[in-house]
Amino acid sequence: MNIGIYGYGNLGRGVEDAIRRNPDMSLAAVFTRRDPQTLSIHTPGVPVVSAEEVLDWKDRIDVLVICGGSATDLPGMTPELAKHFNVIDSYDNHSQIPKHFESVDKAALGGKKTALISCGWDPGMFSLNRLYAGCILPDGSDYTFWGKGVSQGHSDAIRRIEGVLDARQYTVPVEEAVERVRKGEQPDFTARQKHTRECFVVAEEGADLERIRREIVTMPAYFEPYDTTVTFISMEEMKANHSELPHGGSVIRTGATGQDDGHKQVIEYKLTLDSNPEFTGSVLVAYARAVGRMAARGDFGCKSVFDVAPADLSVLPRSELIAHML
Amino acid sequence: MNIGIYGYGNLGRGVEDAIRRNPDMSLAAVFTRRDPQTLSIHTPGVPVVSAEEVLDWKDRIDVLVICGGSATDLPGMTPELAKHFNVIDSYDNHSQIPKHFESVDKAALGGKKTALISCGWDPGMFSLNRLYAGCILPDGSDYTFWGKGVSQGHSDAIRRIEGVLDARQYTVPVEEAVERVRKGEQPDFTARQKHTRECFVVAEEGADLERIRREIVTMPAYFEPYDTTVTFISMEEMKANHSELPHGGSVIRTGATGQDDGHKQVIEYKLTLDSNPEFTGSVLVAYARAVGRMAARGDFGCKSVFDVAPADLSVLPRSELIAHML
Repeated sequence: MNIGIYGYGNLGRGVEDAIRRNPDMSLAAVFTRRDPQTLSIHTPGVPVVSAEEVLDWKDRIDVLVICGGSATDLPGMTPELAKHFNVIDSYDNHSQIPKHFESVDKAALGGKKTALISCGWDPGMFSLNRLYAGCILPDGSDYTFWGKGVSQGHSDAIRRIEGVLDARQYTVPVEEAVERVRKGEQPDFTARQKHTRECFVVAEEGADLERIRREIVTMPAYFEPYDTTVTFISMEEMKANHSELPHGGSVIRTGATGQDDGHKQVIEYKLTLDSNPEFTGSVLVAYARAVGRMAARGDFGCKSVFDVAPADLSVLPRSELIAHML
Repeated sequence: MNIGIYGYGNLGRGVEDAIRRNPDMSLAAVFTRRDPQTLSIHTPGVPVVSAEEVLDWKDRIDVLVICGGSATDLPGMTPELAKHFNVIDSYDNHSQIPKHFESVDKAALGGKKTALISCGWDPGMFSLNRLYAGCILPDGSDYTFWGKGVSQGHSDAIRRIEGVLDARQYTVPVEEAVERVRKGEQPDFTARQKHTRECFVVAEEGADLERIRREIVTMPAYFEPYDTTVTFISMEEMKANHSELPHGGSVIRTGATGQDDGHKQVIEYKLTLDSNPEFTGSVLVAYARAVGRMAARGDFGCKSVFDVAPADLSVLPRSELIAHML
């Protein structure tokens, strides 16, 4: 299966890494909006092509993995490319997913292509686990905890404060809350009871640190609803200790079964990730395989992870899955 | 959707409990090989019917949930019933699954019916999670830990020893081994390093307890490869403290991504179940919904959990899943 990568940031590099680990996949080309000459990729012998020339590659790519940002790139990019390619993206703006779905569906059906949106771990594997667990235990409650991990959105929000040179924000689940849920309790939590926020900030020399701290912890929606700690560090410390992008979290559903709801049942799906973009890239590549297969069967239009039969993710034939994986 | 339950032991009662929690499902009848007069079920107004009369119900049941044992019941029962009904079972004899699959497939295709075998949590949700995790992290290792929970097979093995009146065996994961795997290590474990076995035994008065203990801990395959503890208790203690059927466990995959495999990624799926048969029944009922839908679409033959698109498990329409679950 020939895969194209459209956009070569952290996520694009994660997809590239995943492709080389799947023997039935090969990287056909990387498309970039930057000057292709300035880009050096990891896979030897693979062309780096200007995004403007992507349509020349229509017959050489089975699935195009679109690695753009959800805020401004994907809403236009995915429908446009879905007219001409089988595509997959990681669109994560939850409230706008139905709108994105609709525009991608129309484009893909028009071009007789298959598209899959909002793939990764949340949305993606976490959504899938919320669905499975909810179907198995209809009488119950869902809890999603994120972290410990770097939130890019919250880090960016701190960087926009005057006097801040760089910042890294870690979302941290409150372990006591997680443990209560794991025991099968079904508490109502406030935002503050579920997560804390740890900020590491590099300030300009002479900046008013107390003002910066106050602007962070009182920022509505981002930090005000949480217990937030702010630690000022040097640029050297930032580079040495905070250059990675770990993340993860847990989806937990607890429900009752039996006479008088007498039995507690707890389902937990937990991710502990050293690299968020590389894991997301790995999920995208597994689902790219399914997109290619669905397209080959003539199953066109926009799909989500909910529409994909698990067998379509695997390189192994069905008989082998039944004999060795069931 | 009208559901029939074929066999009314612990699992059949678990299925019955799950049906009442799913508003789109209704229990049509319970079929038993015992005298129907002797059976009292929980759902008011539902007929208990002799298994011999099951064919009279062909037009009144959308999916039949077969709650027989894997050793002797299901290999004959499921193919026979799949000629006439859409069926689902929890066949768990791993080495014989391909053979069972083939005979059920032939019967279901012949009768234009849909069948799903080996559904529950292992095989079932654990298999599914091994598949998903393996597709996402092709370079990695899988670990399955069971327990703490009651193993019926091991309890039965103890009960066959002379002088034993009753027995309960708990499979217990070695917490230190689980923690090593959760940290992303990929150790090679012996059976002894992963699980211990705790046995509670009621012996006949005057029985040679040391002989019974020795026969248990030296039993090949069942106990010899493990560290096994044997505790003798009274029949009263057995009834008071060991009458429940808890179980659970974890499927953990750890893999590497990135340049030089520099990043560890850990995926864990964990179940903590107060009642093994009620949870298995809940999984069966969710998949019965999918079986009914696949049959309605004309997708006949034998299936496994790998063939079912997650959306088919949910009572919610696709648009709602996209808007609220993704």
